[in-house]
Order: sequence, then C-alpha cells, then structure tokens
Amino acid sequence: LSQNNIRVYLEPDNREVWASPGDNLLDILGQAGITLNAACGGAGTCGGCRVEVRTGNIAGQPTPFISTVDLASGWRQACLSRVWADSVIYIPPTSRHTTSSLPTEEIVSRGSPVRYDPLFIKYQVTLAPPVLNSNTSDLGRLFLFLEREYRLRHTTVDLAILQQLPIIIRESLSGCTVTIAREATENRIINIETGDTRKVQYVMAFDLGTTTVWGQLIDTLSGRSIAQTITLNKQITYGQDVISRIAYSQRKEGLTQLKQAAVSSLNHVIQLLLNHCRLNQNQIVGSAVAANPTMMHLLFGLDPQYIRLSPYVPVTNTFPTVKAASLGLALPPHAPLVSLPAASSWIGGDVIAGLVASGMYRNKYPSLYIDIGTNGEAILGGAEWMVGAACSAGPAFEGGGITCGMVAQNGAIEDCLIDPITLEPSLVTIGGGSPRGICGSGLISVLAGLFMSGALLPNGKYRRGLTTERLRQGDMGVEYILSWAAQNEIGRDIVFSEADVDNLLRAKAALYAGYETLRQSVGLPREEISRIYVTGGFGRHLDLEKAISIGLLPDLPRRLFIFLGNGSLSGAGRALQSRNALMAAAKTARRITSLELSSHHGYMAQYTAALFLPHTDSAQFPSVCYRLAK
Amino acid sequence: LSQNNIRVYLEPDNREVWASPGDNLLDILGQAGITLNAACGGAGTCGGCRVEVRTGNIAGQPTPFISTVDLASGWRQACLSRVWADSVIYIPPTSRHTTSSLPTEEIVSRGSPVRYDPLFIKYQVTLAPPVLNSNTSDLGRLFLFLEREYRLRHTTVDLAILQQLPIIIRESLSGCTVTIAREATENRIINIETGDTRKVQYVMAFDLGTTTVWGQLIDTLSGRSIAQTITLNKQITYGQDVISRIAYSQRKEGLTQLKQAAVSSLNHVIQLLLNHCRLNQNQIVGSAVAANPTMMHLLFGLDPQYIRLSPYVPVTNTFPTVKAASLGLALPPHAPLVSLPAASSWIGGDVIAGLVASGMYRNKYPSLYIDIGTNGEAILGGAEWMVGAACSAGPAFEGGGITCGMVAQNGAIEDCLIDPITLEPSLVTIGGGSPRGICGSGLISVLAGLFMSGALLPNGKYRRGLTTERLRQGDMGVEYILSWAAQNEIGRDIVFSEADVDNLLRAKAALYAGYETLRQSVGLPREEISRIYVTGGFGRHLDLEKAISIGLLPDLPRRLFIFLGNGSLSGAGRALQSRNALMAAAKTARRITSLELSSHHGYMAQYTAALFLPHTDSAQFPSVCYRLAK
Repeated sequence: LSQNNIRVYLEPDNREVWASPGDNLLDILGQAGITLNAACGGAGTCGGCRVEVRTGNIAGQPTPFISTVDLASGWRQACLSRVWADSVIYIPPTSRHTTSSLPTEEIVSRGSPVRYDPLFIKYQVTLAPPVLNSNTSDLGRLFLFLEREYRLRHTTVDLAILQQLPIIIRESLSGCTVTIAREATENRIINIETGDTRKVQYVMAFDLGTTTVWGQLIDTLSGRSIAQTITLNKQITYGQDVISRIAYSQRKEGLTQLKQAAVSSLNHVIQLLLNHCRLNQNQIVGSAVAANPTMMHLLFGLDPQYIRLSPYVPVTNTFPTVKAASLGLALPPHAPLVSLPAASSWIGGDVIAGLVASGMYRNKYPSLYIDIGTNGEAILGGAEWMVGAACSAGPAFEGGGITCGMVAQNGAIEDCLIDPITLEPSLVTIGGGSPRGICGSGLISVLAGLFMSGALLPNGKYRRGLTTERLRQGDMGVEYILSWAAQNEIGRDIVFSEADVDNLLRAKAALYAGYETLRQSVGLPREEISRIYVTGGFGRHLDLEKAISIGLLPDLPRRLFIFLGNGSLSGAGRALQSRNALMAAAKTARRITSLELSSHHGYMAQYTAALFLPHTDSAQFPSVCYRLAK
Repeated sequence: LSQNNIRVYLEPDNREVWASPGDNLLDILGQAGITLNAACGGAGTCGGCRVEVRTGNIAGQPTPFISTVDLASGWRQACLSRVWADSVIYIPPTSRHTTSSLPTEEIVSRGSPVRYDPLFIKYQVTLAPPVLNSNTSDLGRLFLFLEREYRLRHTTVDLAILQQLPIIIRESLSGCTVTIAREATENRIINIETGDTRKVQYVMAFDLGTTTVWGQLIDTLSGRSIAQTITLNKQITYGQDVISRIAYSQRKEGLTQLKQAAVSSLNHVIQLLLNHCRLNQNQIVGSAVAANPTMMHLLFGLDPQYIRLSPYVPVTNTFPTVKAASLGLALPPHAPLVSLPAASSWIGGDVIAGLVASGMYRNKYPSLYIDIGTNGEAILGGAEWMVGAACSAGPAFEGGGITCGMVAQNGAIEDCLIDPITLEPSLVTIGGGSPRGICGSGLISVLAGLFMSGALLPNGKYRRGLTTERLRQGDMGVEYILSWAAQNEIGRDIVFSEADVDNLLRAKAALYAGYETLRQSVGLPREEISRIYVTGGFGRHLDLEKAISIGLLPDLPRRLFIFLGNGSLSGAGRALQSRNALMAAAKTARRITSLELSSHHGYMAQYTAALFLPHTDSAQFPSVCYRLAK
C-alpha cells in the first residue's frame, strides 16, 4: 500500500505534494493538479516535461532532451523520474501545460448593446397534479403552463424529452426546469431537468479556424463571456491551408480523418473551458460555430472538393442546426450546435460572424472589414450594399510557416521594441514569462521594429554590414536573434529570418491587394471609407501604427480603425445571445456580393506592388514615409 | 458436427429437406423457409404447429393438443418432435402461417374526394451546372430551382441529404429526384435520388391495434391503396388487453420488450406488403400510424402506467414525427413516420383517424361513430361539438377469447346462414377455402343466426331439447358445431359454445351501454342521430341486420348506417394523402370532450340491461322483435 511519506516541495508554486518511494514524478504532479507539457503522453519522447531538482533524490536518466551535463546539474524529464527522498524541485513555466485562459475582452462593437434574447432559455415549471375533470396529458399540461406563464406558443418537443417527461414531472415536487431552443418558427423543448437549474445557462461559441481553434464560454444569464481559450487545429497534420486540406479530403478516409481532427480540436477546447471554469458538460445548454466554408464542410462531413474547382461552389452556405453530440462533440446529447451561415465558397460564417459583431451591416456609410487570418478576407460596404473577397494570406499571421512562430498562447512574444541605435530588442510575452516563440501580433511588431529602425530594407532583406551580434547568417538567409538560448527556457535561440520576412510580406501583400482591388472595383475613393474594422486570430493586441508601417493596413486616419479581437468568435457568441443577431447574420450572408480576385485583372499587379515595405508606391503610405524620413 | 443425412419429404409441397439425427422438426422446417403457426415461439404451448408423420421415425409426445390417439395416427407438434430417420410428413394448411393479402376495398366515405395534397411529394430536378458569374452553392441552386419550378418556399434539408448532394447532382446528368416532406411550417427535403424516380411514390399506413396490426400500401400518385394486410400483434404474448400490457410494461425491460414486439409486428406487415407488391423498402417514401394511446406509448417507448391510474393521464396526445427507422421499423432511413394525434388516454389516434376517414367532423347534424374493437369507442357529435367515450369491449369481436375465434385471415368464417328448420349452417370463408375458425363478422353472423332461428334464447343459452346433432354438451356448456372435423382441414370441430356467447354478449353490452350513456349524457333523442358510422377490425363485412338483431348496433333506420371497414387504417392512409386531412385530425383531437364511463352513474345499469338478446327492454329493438314474432 502507498505510504505517501515523501515530501516534494514545488517552486515557484511554494506548495508541497506527498509521494511514496519510487513514485513517478509526472504522475505525482498530475494527481496534484499540475499539468506538465507531455504531448507524448508520458512516453519520454517529447521532452516537454523538464523540471530541475534543487535538493533531494529524484532518479532520472540522460535522454535526447537531457544531456549528462543537464542531468548532473539537476534537470530531469518528469515522466522518466522516480522520487526516492524528500526533494525540492523547480518547474519552469515552459514545462507547464498552458491552457491560455486569455482575459476576456469586451468586443468593441458599433452595434447597440445586446438585448436579452438568447437562443436557449431555461424556464422553471411547476405543474399541478392531474385531476379527473381535467386529465390533460403530461405534455399538454406542460405546454399550457409554458403558454400561461411565459407566453410561449408553437411549442414542440424531442422524443427523448417525452420519454423522461412522466418521471421527471412526478419526481420534481418543487418543480422542474425545461430548456427551450427558440427556433425561427417554433419553441422546441430540448431538455428537462429535475429541480430549478436556471442559474446554469452556459453556452459555448467556437471559431474553427484553419490554424487555430478558439472557444468561449458564455453565461447567458449575465450575457458575459467568462472564459476564452485557444488551441491548434489538429488538422494541421494534413496540410497548412484549406487547399491542401481539400486535397487531403479526397483520399480514402480523408474526409473522415479531417472531420475527426476538427471534432477532436473542438473537444480539446471544450475540455479546457470546462476545466478552467470547473463545470461539467451537462451544464452546457447549447453551442454555435463560426468557420470558413472549408472548415464547415469538413466538420459536417460534406465533400469540399468543388470549393477549390472553378467556379468554386460549396455544397451549401447554410448548415442545419444539429445536436452537437451527433457530430461527435463532447457536449450533452440535447445541446444543439448552431452554425453561422456563409456568403460563398470563400466568405464564410467566420466573416459573417465578424460583421455581426462589428455592427458594420447597419452602417450608413461604407466601412472596410479586414480579417487577417490564414484565409484573409476583406468586406466593403454597409447597410445598403456589401462586396467581399477572400485573399489567401496563408498562416503567417497566426505564426504558421514562421521559424519560431507560435499561436497566441502563454510565452508568445506579442510585442517588441527594437532600439534603433543598438538594435537590442525589448520583448513582451503573453503571461509575462520567458519567451517561447512569436505570435501574429509579435511578428507584426518585430517586422515593423526592424524596418523602422533601418535594420530591414524595403525589399525585406537585412541591411548588410550592421555591427550587432543580433544579426547572423542562418540556414534561411540572414536572421535576427530575438532571444538567446541561454536567456530563455526553451533552450534555443528565437530568431526571425529573411525567409520569415518573405512569408510575412507575401501574406500582407495578399491582404493589401485584396482590399485595394475590392475598393477600386466599386470605385470608392479611399477617403470615403468611414470605418475600418480589423480582426484575426493573431493575438490579443494589434499595434495599429506598426501594422500600417509594414503596409498591412491602409495609411488612413487612426481614429477610423476599430480592432475587434477575434470577431468570428465574438459573433458566434453574440448569435447565441441574440436571435436578432443570428437573423442579421442570415440576412447579411445573403446580400454580400462576392468578388473572385483570382479572375480579377488588377489583382496580380496590386499584389506584386505590395511585396515591399511598406509598398512600392510610397505615396500610399505618407505617414510612414514621413516617420522614416525623420 | 451436423451430418444432414436424414431426408424429410414434405407433402403437399413435394420437396425434401435434410436433417441430422435428433434435429428439432420446427427448426428444420424454419430453416427451409416453411413457417408454421407457432404463436408461442416453439414453447409447445399453443398447439399451432401440428403435422402428420406418414412414414418414417419422428419422435413426439402427447400434449394438450395431441391426444394419444392422434399421436398413434401420426400427428405431432413439430416444436416438440425430433427426427431420427428418413420420413414423409404432411403439413396441413391450417398449420402454415398464412399471410393473408386481403383485396383492397375503397372506403365508404362521406367526405369529399381526396384532393391531390400528399404529405410527401417527389419533384424532378435538373440543375444547370454552376458558372463563375453565379456560383451559388449546390443547395442554393436546388432551393432556387424548387422555388422557380414548383413554387416551394421555406425549404429546409436534413444533414444526410447535404452529404450526398454534391455527388448526386453531378452524377445525374439528366436530372435527379428530391422528396419533400410538406410539414406545417416548412418544406423539408428528406431524400435525393439519381434519375427520375417520380413514378415510385409509395407510402404505408399502419393501424397498430391491441389484437391485430393492419397495414396498407398506397400509391400516392394515383391516390389508390394497392395492397392491405393484417397480422396478429406480437404483444399478445404479454397480455390480451391494454391493461395487462401496461402492467407488463412496468416489469424490468417490459417496456422494451413490448416496444420491440410492436416494431416486429409492424415489420412483419411491412414485409408482407413489400413481398406482395414486389417492392423493396427503398421505394417507400413515408408512413403514418394510427393506434390507441397505449399502443402509441409502447411503440414510442413512453411509460404508459399513468394511463390506467386515475385520473388517466397519458404522457402525450401528440407524437413528434420521427424517422421510422429510428424506432426500428424496416423502412429506409429517410422515411418519416407521422402519427395521428389522440384526444385523451382512451380516445386515441385510431379513433381520430376513423373520424377523419368518415368525414363526420364536418357534419352539421350529430352523428354517432362506433368502433367495435378490443378497445371499443363511441363518439357522438359533428362540426359543432363532439363527445366521446371508451367502452372496453375486450377482444371478442376480433376473435379473441372465443373457442374457435381467429383474426380476419384466409379460412376465417366471415358469414353464416343457419337454416331455421334444420339448424344446418352454410358457411362463407375468407378466401373461399376450408374453414379454420371464426372471425369477428362471422361471430356476429353466427350469433344472430342462432338467435333468429330460435336455437339461442335471449339469455344467451341454447334452447334445450332441439333435435339436431349440431348441438351437444361440451366442456364450456352446450356448444353448436359449425364444421365437423371430418369436413375441414384443421382436423377439429369448429364450435360455438355458450361461453363464447357470454363473451360476445358482454362485449356488445359494453359497447351498447357506452354509446347509449353518451347519448343520454348530452340529452340527444335517439331520432336526432343523423348518421351512424361503424368501424372495427372484425373483418371485411358487417351484416347490418344481424348486428342490430343481436343488439350490438341501435335499431334505427338502416339507411343511416355507414360501414367504414377499418376506419383507423383508412384515416391513417388519408392523412398521408392529404395535409388537410392531417390538419383536420389535429383539430378534431383537440375538440373532443372525453366522458369517463367508469365514473358515470348510469353506465352499469345500461350495461346490465344490454346483457340480453337483443336487449332487456325489447322496445328499444322494435324491428328485431317484429321479425322474431314473425
């Protein structure tokens, strides 16, 4: 039997856990609720669970990740270590599994505040026992009660509810709780619970991106988002962009694999949110998803091949509301999954959600909406007309395809100042700890800093002959070292190479050319854009000045810009909280005119011209040129 | 290992089957595709599987159904017999499970002819290939086509259809066919097929009775029923009436067993109809079921216990439309099952269907609707008001609980003339062959014939001292022999005993007391009944004069009577053919006032008075008394 007489003291947590002689260190920490990075599941092959033994006796071994020198100085892989005596260990932040619960931000919305009008509402029900003079059926009495007390009409019910109904209404002497899905033409009873559970009305919104998957847990009662998280889309194994995913879907079982990867990624997000909020899945009432058309096709098991073949036709732009569990999502069997509608093969529910979150669809004067994602999109217009285009930017702005890129998790460099004299960087990381990589907002910041300091030339090459050890020749051209291996906890230099710059230039050129072609196609002078909404999965913050200085965003008055954060996620959340928002989404999706950039004659010229910093035609970026000259 | 070296030759089939020593005879025959009557499932308790061994060695035993004399002359119960040597056996037709495809009859309906307005319609769709200037989604183009060509709006789609859509519309160069379920608030696409399949638009209507299960195959295009069949409800193993079924449902797994028995019975009907019409299940577009509330609860897996506990409350009176396959029915995955709504715990969708089939709900003057079934029902009223009551008659009029009773299958005596002088019977059987038993209409005919000829006294006893060998003392009182064993193929006398008479008298008294109590409770003079609709599962024909002469139906002008056949089945069929009919059913179900007879003070007196032939108060049957006196 376990003795648990060995004390392991944890730093910097300043807490102790108890173990028996010979216990595996990873297991002890896991039981104490401390999750280390163990992507390999404790098999010893990923090296993610490094800890440092400061005193005591914890037996380990040299591994590909722990040299004999490391071992001698106290480093261990927790999964391969056994505890033999009282010890003190240090767990570096880089070894901790971060679930990145970003602080929730209120979205900046031009729309009116959300009225309480959620898709799913719980109602308290107390049915009088049946009597001989009025022996209405159980369901009849329930309908009557809902109509009398809450004015709910056109009520329908799932068969699963009927099967539980007689027991629950007779067991619940002090009443029960029914959950109503308020659909377009009817009120559908989707759940019935014993007792009063009205305090528990949580919903989940998802943004299923090509590179990253976001989730938000919302308390419908307060209308507030109480947690938000992000993970990588597991489909990345099958290709980095939608084109390669579509190609993979045509293999035998390919569609099934991609569907499962999407479901698994969403389930990871669900688990992170539930764990963080100490909730269980039965407390989730319903859910909504916004995603680009390819991701939606893959999630619903629809063949996406015609999306990438001219004339670029999706199976559908609208998706039926289904039980989330029927797709494999780890949500309760009754919980529906509502989908935001798409406008075309390339302008998906993610964009529509962002338009709803921004309120742009109500604006009298034309606005510009720019989504900086793996599938970039630009929408121009307002209440009267809307035209949109997809600009395939690639994953660079989400950290994809970049040497030291990463998603916007703890440890990601999200901002960076570069001293114009010494070229020394000052880094800001998410969570404030040691840097582990660079997220989208960090990449914009580094690129802008190096360019504005003169280290990087307009053609995207580092200036030769600079006297700083931060620049060196690497495998991928010259590279700039943001963080030395000795000064961070990942044990590798964090670098930014000319190949990375090239990737980012192509991404920003695609976006710039996209919204410029759109603007010119409707003949709208740049000065008549009344508002620019910016969204994307690149991180929490976007430094507007820096984004303009690299030519990603247009050089227009700064007061016109509004940063939405992840507009797709916000819009999906808003649709759950407001039937009006969901209806606005449907209406907006139908009225966007899609422009096909690849067949538009001006697009390639715009793209080529934008492959410079900030742009070949510097007259388009007067304020940047002014500051550069200074 | 099995040797299969014994040859069993079957007569009159003139074929051979092979067996191993000691094999069970019922199993061997079953494996050879020959189904014997084995209502008990081979337990040896029903005696239905009698065969005669002509040569060879098949070991058996005496049973309650096989006397030692029978055994010596070669008779065996197949389920209790083992094969030991090459043999020749004779299988009498009465031991074979017959599947009885009754010729279809048009129902006699007072309603207007059914306008073409079915619940499920197929449409031919030819989509132009997508073009770059109009790259609407596949579903969008389908919706557009349906709206332009057929004026279909508010169209929705099942996810399963979306998954097939892109392949089918691209494969079907000459067009495809979509099936639309025309629901209350939307047109739902439930199926899509390659090519033009509009000629195949069959639907199935079911009457799930307590004793018998009926099915009808309808061609929606022509509006004609093309086949109709009947089988025993397999739930009979668990009790003869709804009360004992409800009791059984409270056992562990009881509800599941009853549900499965109902599904299995319906599947048998489905198989019979498909085989008869040489169709496969994929040609069935949709289905509808009418049944009493208990049967509906059991079919849908809803706990029926509160139906039999005061105040007699069902879980629900309306049932959601589901995919038939989701309940286990052997219909294609897309085919819906629509349910006729009930009015109360005892007035079910079967009665509502009958009211719809009769058109009575539109009548300006009050009519009477009488359902002569195991659960008898009476409804009084018309367009302005309706009041109804259940009169638990028992299964006698469907042949249940009667010595030689049987359902209305081939071989059932359905009519009978009795010579008033000689008391010799002339029998009419369904199918015209040798008699096997007596169905409901036959029982009424026999009872009336014996009573009108004077052989049976008003108190239900045979007159003593009659000189005919057709009357003899049996185990159950005096009995009348309708068919001698020597003259039929079941090898047993077909008799009609005083116990049978008693059973029928109690059944008809329950019905008579029911509709009389109903009439008196609303103070309606008998003369003001403008129409009497009669329905029930007793057979194809009802001899009105005979039914009145035994006091089952009121002695009113004969021109007022309309015989509906199986009104429940007709109504279910009509609901499939007409959305208006389905809406009328919903409306009718809501406006019937239910009268609880058991708590009505006049009912027991009415019942007791009706336990005579035709009635204690002969003034209520003037025409019968006049003819008797003649």
